Amino acid sequence: MADFLTLKTVDQILTLLEDFDPLPTEEIPLEAALGRVLAAPYLAPADLPGFNRSTVDGFAVRARDVFGASEGLPAALTLVGEGRMGQDCSLTLNPGETIRVWTGGALPPQSDAVVMLEYARTSQAGLVELVKPLAPGENVILADEDAAKDQELIPIGQTLRAAELGLMAAFGETVVSVRRKPKFAILATGDEVVKITDAPKIGQVRDINSIAIKALVEAAGGLGELLGLVPDDLPLLSQKVATGLALADAVVLTGGSSAGEKDYTLKALTAQPGTAALAHGVAISPGKPLIFARQGQKSLWGLPGHPAGALVTAEVFLKALIRRLTGAKEPIWPKALKARLSRSVPSAEGRRDYFRVKLTFKGQELIASPVLGKSALISTLAGADALAICPEEREGLEQGEWADIRLL
Amino acid sequence: MADFLTLKTVDQILTLLEDFDPLPTEEIPLEAALGRVLAAPYLAPADLPGFNRSTVDGFAVRARDVFGASEGLPAALTLVGEGRMGQDCSLTLNPGETIRVWTGGALPPQSDAVVMLEYARTSQAGLVELVKPLAPGENVILADEDAAKDQELIPIGQTLRAAELGLMAAFGETVVSVRRKPKFAILATGDEVVKITDAPKIGQVRDINSIAIKALVEAAGGLGELLGLVPDDLPLLSQKVATGLALADAVVLTGGSSAGEKDYTLKALTAQPGTAALAHGVAISPGKPLIFARQGQKSLWGLPGHPAGALVTAEVFLKALIRRLTGAKEPIWPKALKARLSRSVPSAEGRRDYFRVKLTFKGQELIASPVLGKSALISTLAGADALAICPEEREGLEQGEWADIRLL
Repeated sequence: MADFLTLKTVDQILTLLEDFDPLPTEEIPLEAALGRVLAAPYLAPADLPGFNRSTVDGFAVRARDVFGASEGLPAALTLVGEGRMGQDCSLTLNPGETIRVWTGGALPPQSDAVVMLEYARTSQAGLVELVKPLAPGENVILADEDAAKDQELIPIGQTLRAAELGLMAAFGETVVSVRRKPKFAILATGDEVVKITDAPKIGQVRDINSIAIKALVEAAGGLGELLGLVPDDLPLLSQKVATGLALADAVVLTGGSSAGEKDYTLKALTAQPGTAALAHGVAISPGKPLIFARQGQKSLWGLPGHPAGALVTAEVFLKALIRRLTGAKEPIWPKALKARLSRSVPSAEGRRDYFRVKLTFKGQELIASPVLGKSALISTLAGADALAICPEEREGLEQGEWADIRLL
Repeated sequence: MADFLTLKTVDQILTLLEDFDPLPTEEIPLEAALGRVLAAPYLAPADLPGFNRSTVDGFAVRARDVFGASEGLPAALTLVGEGRMGQDCSLTLNPGETIRVWTGGALPPQSDAVVMLEYARTSQAGLVELVKPLAPGENVILADEDAAKDQELIPIGQTLRAAELGLMAAFGETVVSVRRKPKFAILATGDEVVKITDAPKIGQVRDINSIAIKALVEAAGGLGELLGLVPDDLPLLSQKVATGLALADAVVLTGGSSAGEKDYTLKALTAQPGTAALAHGVAISPGKPLIFARQGQKSLWGLPGHPAGALVTAEVFLKALIRRLTGAKEPIWPKALKARLSRSVPSAEGRRDYFRVKLTFKGQELIASPVLGKSALISTLAGADALAICPEEREGLEQGEWADIRLL
């Protein structure tokens, strides 16, 4: 099969993903938005907290009134009242005056600092002696200090965490605009494959790819819908792929992606109207017999039937697709994570190799120990913490070398 | 308040968490187990794949029959049949014989290697010329090569990912034994705090801690139940804490944890029968006025009302508690992640400081830029990628220094 002889590189496939548009947005309740991707920058709709607020229990002052105050030479201010929690502080603070305030309470507009309780003496009735100087703004959150109206607080593409949800809640938001979750229709093919709930006979294996790909997709922020198992039968397979295209943003088929005579996946994918095969065969290991096709804004994937090949290509390509479709910003830190290889591993020039590794710590160093075993084994991935990456221009990674890793 | 004067260290609190037992296990469907923590080691219930299996399309051989084969001197074997996908290969392979097999198919018991199609010539009827030597086991997965019966495949405490679910599915597992999710009852106190859906007046702020703590707990594998907002009223607060203790594994109260006269949290927590306060005040910034108490196997937490203090202490302590209660293994790689500080930040000796930082990449280096702003601000956490940690024995971190970081 001619296509297979011209392998695409990993980066070529990733570049092709840039032609897909982010999915439409949807409005969801704020409390359901954990882990979702913000579809528009979030600007502060008002100042926060909206009033000058004490961060300590103490005495609100004009900072200039306690300038130079010390144990030996306290500043004596007249106590003219007490702030009440949760209420506007309507008192006017004249020079030389102070009021008692509480952590989180509003300050009189004229005060710009709060002296902590431990630096105050209230020995004389009606007077407070303050023994510490303060800079303006000390122990105070100014009205627009947490956020100023119209300031961009959360960038587009941010995956929403506890802090973002809290910040939006501070402004009373109850719904948030996020990208719709990409939906994946997942099916498996192979005459030798049986359902998980069936007992395989000799020569048969259970369909472990479907549940694993669904889990991987959902952990990355997508939705997986299992369409089940199809024998090596082109009309049946084509029909299931059409069903998948109708209900999902992407169709993922595991098995039958190679170039053998019983491999119908390419035919079944390209049989769909308006579908173009963009790749058959990728310079990646494990996962070389990968098929990638496109129908408008929908993508079609033929992943290898071998579990390790299926999971590694899903890790590399489906996660990138989910990021693209949700518009999620890529985190910067994974590029900084490297591990030292405990032993050499061979690769072939021209392909990108993802070695399954276990991570341990030795002194100050993160050690990556390659998990032995053929790429077709699922157990090698279940035991792995990460993938160590051997780039195309190398013929392997050497013992003691610092390798780029990708966490699993 | 005497207790507050003796601050506990972060590590002392973390050590106290070791006195809590992991929660009971529960059996859940395999397809619902993503992200859950395995409660017992998983041993292979059988060999996997259970039969010798080809990993390529080609010809099954006894490796010794093709020893020394080459383009110039091919090994000519008699083709005696074809394996059928999904069926036992009952053919007997005598020396000098071969059969056609397919990727994933079962091999005759006597064969120990498969010659790939591209190294075979079938010019003469009934004969196959193989032009490449093979080692025994090449292009074959042996019956117990993916897993041998009774081998430990997944350790206790493993958080289940796609690969583990796939591996268990390979053995037909449909339910899995995991630790119950720890349940957190979350409430907020403060006369100045109003519900998210209310419009705060001057002096009031919305309860942003409840939704943020719930999100943090749930992202870490727990369950959060919001018990709402309670004014600074000791009987009411005590009653709500009792409600929380009855329904959850831990009660988390934000606000009122300081040592002021309106701070009722300590009293409300210790008013519960059989409850002992283990800490009031921790040498951590932000988050110093933290309360930690215990009632049997349940923990009670008074987190600071300031959002940054609440979220940082939740990040440090509640996540550790969830790990303890679920028995989840701690990942090793975070210890390897360091970032270089873009500028110096001051701390005080004797406390552990968590500075909010943004991460960027500069050349090969991960740069941590401290986010400016007081610890009481929620916006500084929403903008942060990580926390940079200043240990107790230091008085700050210096520009250009490599700091330990904790991802948010």
